[in-house]
Amino acid sequence: MKKSPMDAAIQEAEYGMENGHGGPFGAVVVRDGKIIGRGHNRVLLYRDPTCHGEIEAIRDACRKTGTHSLEGTDIYTTSEPCPMCLGAILWAGIRNIYIGCNREDAEDIGFRDRVFYDTMNQMAYRLIPLQREDCLALFARYKALPGRETY
Amino acid sequence: MKKSPMDAAIQEAEYGMENGHGGPFGAVVVRDGKIIGRGHNRVLLYRDPTCHGEIEAIRDACRKTGTHSLEGTDIYTTSEPCPMCLGAILWAGIRNIYIGCNREDAEDIGFRDRVFYDTMNQMAYRLIPLQREDCLALFARYKALPGRETY
Repeated sequence: MKKSPMDAAIQEAEYGMENGHGGPFGAVVVRDGKIIGRGHNRVLLYRDPTCHGEIEAIRDACRKTGTHSLEGTDIYTTSEPCPMCLGAILWAGIRNIYIGCNREDAEDIGFRDRVFYDTMNQMAYRLIPLQREDCLALFARYKALPGRETY
Repeated sequence: MKKSPMDAAIQEAEYGMENGHGGPFGAVVVRDGKIIGRGHNRVLLYRDPTCHGEIEAIRDACRKTGTHSLEGTDIYTTSEPCPMCLGAILWAGIRNIYIGCNREDAEDIGFRDRVFYDTMNQMAYRLIPLQREDCLALFARYKALPGRETY
């Protein structure tokens, strides 16, 4: 039986889990039925809190395709993406997000993302304004640049 | 006059902007008054949509301190972090978030993050469940591992 993209995501997660790279989270990016990027949680391996499965898969796909845009692709992830990964998925321009487990399932095995989601909401109100005029001057300089891109 | 951490973040942003690395966004991570990580937007340079200023600063700080936890640190960023970066800041355990410009300021120079925030909210409801049983089995295997960590 042909393996589904979600099977490939599970395989990624298992590999990472068995080798102590991080939690049981894997993801693959798919274009036209072909896997173009793979990733699993490597937070412990790389000592980098941004190395979640989805971000690793996105970075892998971008490396392999040589672009920062993954428009027209889908992502398959073993567990509901956290806001950081959901953000990365959106910036990448990915179309559909297929998820295996959800955030409650993750909580059942000890990943208390509920605290994370609650804190995210609180943190948005904890931003401390500082030197806005200086930063506005920076923005004005950017706006005046020829051929500037926004993304 | 001693430069503030926000001045250092602005300097990062300027360097990236002038060298075509990406948008005018920079950030620094600070512990006990000392800058331990610097970053600026390198989306175009690395062709990687996750290389926002804040994520680059976090990864730099983690590389330099050899840990995935940045507890007890603060971050100074030239512009309000997007949800991806806010998520990364929270996963890293960063305490205070000092911001220069806000999301409306960024919109004024063409970075239409409003679309992003709106889409984030919609996307959370666009998640497509798939093979949850298979992914739950994966989680059960992780739960049974000795010495497993959650983060």
